[in-house]
Amino acid sequence: MSATPSHIRVCVVGATGFAGVEVVRLVLAHPDLELAMACDRKAAGVALSDVYPALLGSCAATFSLPDPDAIAAAADLAFLAVPHTASLAITPALLERGVSVVDLSADYRLKDPAVYEAWYKTPHTSPELLAEAVYGLPELNRAALVELGRRRASGKPVLVAAPGCYPTATALAAAPALEAGIVTSSLVVSDAKSGVSGAGRKPSERTHFCHASDSVEAYGVGSHRHTPEMEQTLSAVAGSPVDVVFTPHLVPLKRGLVATVYLEVAPEVTPDQVQAIYEDRYRDEALVSVLPAHAMPSCASVAGTARAQVGVALDARRRHVLVASAAIDNLGKGAAAQAVQCANLVCGLPETAGLDFVAPVV
Amino acid sequence: MSATPSHIRVCVVGATGFAGVEVVRLVLAHPDLELAMACDRKAAGVALSDVYPALLGSCAATFSLPDPDAIAAAADLAFLAVPHTASLAITPALLERGVSVVDLSADYRLKDPAVYEAWYKTPHTSPELLAEAVYGLPELNRAALVELGRRRASGKPVLVAAPGCYPTATALAAAPALEAGIVTSSLVVSDAKSGVSGAGRKPSERTHFCHASDSVEAYGVGSHRHTPEMEQTLSAVAGSPVDVVFTPHLVPLKRGLVATVYLEVAPEVTPDQVQAIYEDRYRDEALVSVLPAHAMPSCASVAGTARAQVGVALDARRRHVLVASAAIDNLGKGAAAQAVQCANLVCGLPETAGLDFVAPVV
Amino acid sequence: MSATPSHIRVCVVGATGFAGVEVVRLVLAHPDLELAMACDRKAAGVALSDVYPALLGSCAATFSLPDPDAIAAAADLAFLAVPHTASLAITPALLERGVSVVDLSADYRLKDPAVYEAWYKTPHTSPELLAEAVYGLPELNRAALVELGRRRASGKPVLVAAPGCYPTATALAAAPALEAGIVTSSLVVSDAKSGVSGAGRKPSERTHFCHASDSVEAYGVGSHRHTPEMEQTLSAVAGSPVDVVFTPHLVPLKRGLVATVYLEVAPEVTPDQVQAIYEDRYRDEALVSVLPAHAMPSCASVAGTARAQVGVALDARRRHVLVASAAIDNLGKGAAAQAVQCANLVCGLPETAGLDFVAPVV
Amino acid sequence: MSATPSHIRVCVVGATGFAGVEVVRLVLAHPDLELAMACDRKAAGVALSDVYPALLGSCAATFSLPDPDAIAAAADLAFLAVPHTASLAITPALLERGVSVVDLSADYRLKDPAVYEAWYKTPHTSPELLAEAVYGLPELNRAALVELGRRRASGKPVLVAAPGCYPTATALAAAPALEAGIVTSSLVVSDAKSGVSGAGRKPSERTHFCHASDSVEAYGVGSHRHTPEMEQTLSAVAGSPVDVVFTPHLVPLKRGLVATVYLEVAPEVTPDQVQAIYEDRYRDEALVSVLPAHAMPSCASVAGTARAQVGVALDARRRHVLVASAAIDNLGKGAAAQAVQCANLVCGLPETAGLDFVAPVV
Repeated sequence: MSATPSHIRVCVVGATGFAGVEVVRLVLAHPDLELAMACDRKAAGVALSDVYPALLGSCAATFSLPDPDAIAAAADLAFLAVPHTASLAITPALLERGVSVVDLSADYRLKDPAVYEAWYKTPHTSPELLAEAVYGLPELNRAALVELGRRRASGKPVLVAAPGCYPTATALAAAPALEAGIVTSSLVVSDAKSGVSGAGRKPSERTHFCHASDSVEAYGVGSHRHTPEMEQTLSAVAGSPVDVVFTPHLVPLKRGLVATVYLEVAPEVTPDQVQAIYEDRYRDEALVSVLPAHAMPSCASVAGTARAQVGVALDARRRHVLVASAAIDNLGKGAAAQAVQCANLVCGLPETAGLDFVAPVV
Repeated sequence: MSATPSHIRVCVVGATGFAGVEVVRLVLAHPDLELAMACDRKAAGVALSDVYPALLGSCAATFSLPDPDAIAAAADLAFLAVPHTASLAITPALLERGVSVVDLSADYRLKDPAVYEAWYKTPHTSPELLAEAVYGLPELNRAALVELGRRRASGKPVLVAAPGCYPTATALAAAPALEAGIVTSSLVVSDAKSGVSGAGRKPSERTHFCHASDSVEAYGVGSHRHTPEMEQTLSAVAGSPVDVVFTPHLVPLKRGLVATVYLEVAPEVTPDQVQAIYEDRYRDEALVSVLPAHAMPSCASVAGTARAQVGVALDARRRHVLVASAAIDNLGKGAAAQAVQCANLVCGLPETAGLDFVAPVV
Repeated sequence: MSATPSHIRVCVVGATGFAGVEVVRLVLAHPDLELAMACDRKAAGVALSDVYPALLGSCAATFSLPDPDAIAAAADLAFLAVPHTASLAITPALLERGVSVVDLSADYRLKDPAVYEAWYKTPHTSPELLAEAVYGLPELNRAALVELGRRRASGKPVLVAAPGCYPTATALAAAPALEAGIVTSSLVVSDAKSGVSGAGRKPSERTHFCHASDSVEAYGVGSHRHTPEMEQTLSAVAGSPVDVVFTPHLVPLKRGLVATVYLEVAPEVTPDQVQAIYEDRYRDEALVSVLPAHAMPSCASVAGTARAQVGVALDARRRHVLVASAAIDNLGKGAAAQAVQCANLVCGLPETAGLDFVAPVV
Repeated sequence: MSATPSHIRVCVVGATGFAGVEVVRLVLAHPDLELAMACDRKAAGVALSDVYPALLGSCAATFSLPDPDAIAAAADLAFLAVPHTASLAITPALLERGVSVVDLSADYRLKDPAVYEAWYKTPHTSPELLAEAVYGLPELNRAALVELGRRRASGKPVLVAAPGCYPTATALAAAPALEAGIVTSSLVVSDAKSGVSGAGRKPSERTHFCHASDSVEAYGVGSHRHTPEMEQTLSAVAGSPVDVVFTPHLVPLKRGLVATVYLEVAPEVTPDQVQAIYEDRYRDEALVSVLPAHAMPSCASVAGTARAQVGVALDARRRHVLVASAAIDNLGKGAAAQAVQCANLVCGLPETAGLDFVAPVV
């Protein structure tokens, strides 16, 4: 089941979904990954281009059944773009068969199985894997991912828990300030706006064009399942418990996510310091750009890409509140592209292999 | 210059602008207001339906020059839908000529001329009118508007300062909690999302379809001119200084505005109490609806109307934060419809005359 | 079951659908129609405002079961906004009970039951009603609708077959030229672009925001069921058989429909003549406007209204082809508003009662 | 000024425009082209990423002045993405200096300078170049482009006139039928729907989000300047004069173009034959896909790509009319990507070098 670093055979499970087919797209263009298999239980036997006509001329593959043995025979690594609990059902089988897993679901993100059970209303059936799963947000957790790559190079299959879209944007916006120790309150407000693809491919009243068009609407206030993931990540960054109040909103666009976060900071902090903290933090990150002072990012500027853009401002009148806004593509840096970034790291490939393209700028 | 209560002749100044033409539309359908004049300096002599073909068959009027004498000859009341400072230039002349004014600009909203000068970077040229101008948010300030109506009935022209779109939505979302005394921090975060019509009719890079489409983008962070207006309004409601951190975002839709506000509340407050506070507060308001518990409003549900919808939730884990979201049409309750609501009050008409229509629900 | 002309009790069957709820909206604002009942089999007992939050504060009604006896007890006239064949199932029962019917489905539009069967793949179960059903396109068929009104006034329930959205726009664009006798070929090409609401409220892959957004796509080429209806209507207008080649396209907007038709005309016809023919034809029509020479209509200018706008141009180089473009709201003049216009006529009300409002122009 | 086939230095003139920056994007990702210079008269000295923040992290270049000597010093080939007449002003100077030109403007497309003058209302100032300019639609004109490549390889600078977006889509839809000799009428109707980027980057009333959103609107009926280009191309394909009646429409999306064409065909032609004619015609074309029978293309499936998709249907009732619909990205296959495809051919590179990527499929 070994593979040369420069030629990794991958399988995408859940490849009819929006995140899944985005992994497929990225793999097709990747210099070192090869699409060995694309699985979907319901669409088995159907051509990918029948479901997504945009693939006509670029991809002649057909969907397969997600059978662990078949996957193990065909692939070195599997991307799981399936609903939560579906990953629980297949991940152990893949690891046992020597297939490394990059899981895009929520199943291995939370370290505490009790927290998982509380928010996902279902027991965790493989809590023993939680310790070895590595949270796949490279900008915050690169060392652990590289270490995982060493483990994989030694012949052991590995497990990456790729982050959710909202936690990715929130963490990229909030982490530099929390790391820098300038935040004075445990309360982080994250107000996020996501494109409709975040609601998934299944048609519903909410994703109907006539409902979603011209609509901005908060949902899941105080109860969205990405909340504990954000608290886990930001608490680790801050070194102390962080309380996240998180409100996602659906906005009328296909792909894109902007999270604007609010953190109270020490009164002596200046706007220039804040700008410098963020620029320093991301200077060496290939996929994260900090905008100049006073500029704020648009999700249109990162649509279709693996990139994030972050802008920061300080409201320094009576209360001193840092406002940081991060824009990502919810299917890109918020899902598929980040999963590929993680796969690159655990496969010993250049971190941005297949991800440094330029998307349409108009 | 007198008029029977049931037949008020009105003039709309700045009628080519988005808010101005929305006033025109509402007046055309109003049972008691008559469109006597629609002014625009640049479009004088042009038919309204040449600029807005949607008016073909409904409105044969042409634009006039905004001459105070001509306005005074034709109209009892003027709606000013002009940029700030342009109202300063014409309001005193109209009042002197006995024409009451509902000003949709920012010029008479802030009670302190120094605050106006600080945020609008221009001196206030008629500060003596600030004391008599009444802030036109009927749900918070109805008594003063009714009193103004009495004054007008006695023959004196009056001045209403109609609120900005962001302050309207923010105030409707935050006021009930502040009034109820359950808020424990002076800090109110308002994260707002506005349709592109909020940026005005003038074509610009930012309002180009290819820029605004698929784009969510924060702007004016910590510096938006609606901030002091919110602080003035909410401080009055709270009875103590409120600090607003306000972040507007442009979202890809024509008309609509959602403001989601965050207020820390006392730990003993329960979700049911919060829901009850909001329902009680707005029970008798014809134009404001509170959604059932757990539901949040969409701006699509109030597009084209004079209405607001408010939803509220309590994140009551470690920190107790109330999340209230208000949806309005930025050109409706956020501008033109609210101006007409104010005109109704100061003219002694039923408050919702001409405003209780049902807009398309799809 | 009689009613004074100025107070007609109506029932809307299929009121959860997009066309149905638009009839509801129009009836709520109508001076002479009263919403006595809104039916939907699946939503019986549910508040209309639960399904459409935009009705909060405007409509406290709940859905009822579409039982013919109950409808006859409550209403003088029923609007049927149901799928084809569903009208067949209920129309005879309503007429028998004395309830007049304005049917928005296709069931009584085609005069020849064999044509119905060929295109709708189902036998017509009440062909005896086809002779008495009147096609509800007032601009082409007003006399017959007025005559129907006389019949209804004499105590007989009547049946109106309200036209489809595509046939309405195509007929309004093509009829003046065909009537004027300037068309030299039997071939009429109609290339139409419809908003997504035309595909109905049921969520599907095609109506998913992520599919419909940014998408223009032809469908049903050569096989769309509105084709024979157009041929029936235009042949009657022309006085000889007309062959319609019809291509509908879905475009990314909620409400709106533009049909651009192409007709070869006699070489001596001039652009001025064409413009005059159209202006003369629609001069007295309250709901149809002809744009000035060289201007073409946008569906945005009629969204939410009962109106149509038509523009016409002549390509008079080697071949002489008239290009006429008609814009309507597919749910307005293309469905609900036209049904109300027909109801007005058969109830002896002013034809535009409840329909002469001005919609938002931005 | 020579260059190895595998490393061509290119300059993009007009690089702030939508087509220009799309060429920049494609060149940045191209294996064999190198962005040596990006010119814009007004933006000289400004970073590309300041105008297009999507380029942050991908492109550190700044705009230069479009000076012919500077271009000749830096580049082997220039893409001209400038308005018509601006190409006339610079092309001769570039060719004289040995720089090959791929002109995206209309200046060298029409072979007859009198036709140019009639439609563009300006005399052609370098008619002597029209004979050597090659029309850059590779699927129809590949041999001439390859021949041009030989000429360039021999040291002579060459000139490609890249086609307009509407002519590209219309030609791809109509050419197979015209070539096959099944068309019986000289009249070709092309009804096209274009995204707003086709109207250019300059903000205007028409490109304002609040105008373009929810709007479908025909324009330039019978007078659009792409008409003679279509007639020139299709007449050449048909071997006899073709009369094109062309109606463009603006539709509410950023990038994408669908042209649906109507051609009367011989009555004995069957749908299967039509399908076979199109499949055979494009079988070997890497960038053009023919959809299965009964399927029609969506512009969403080719957005951001160099590809075209074509669907075809036959309405074979009384009149026999072929309906062919082609979808392209107006900035991709309709402009920049096709220009790069031409550059590949004249530079002796693989025709699809840098163009065979997969764009986001959601």
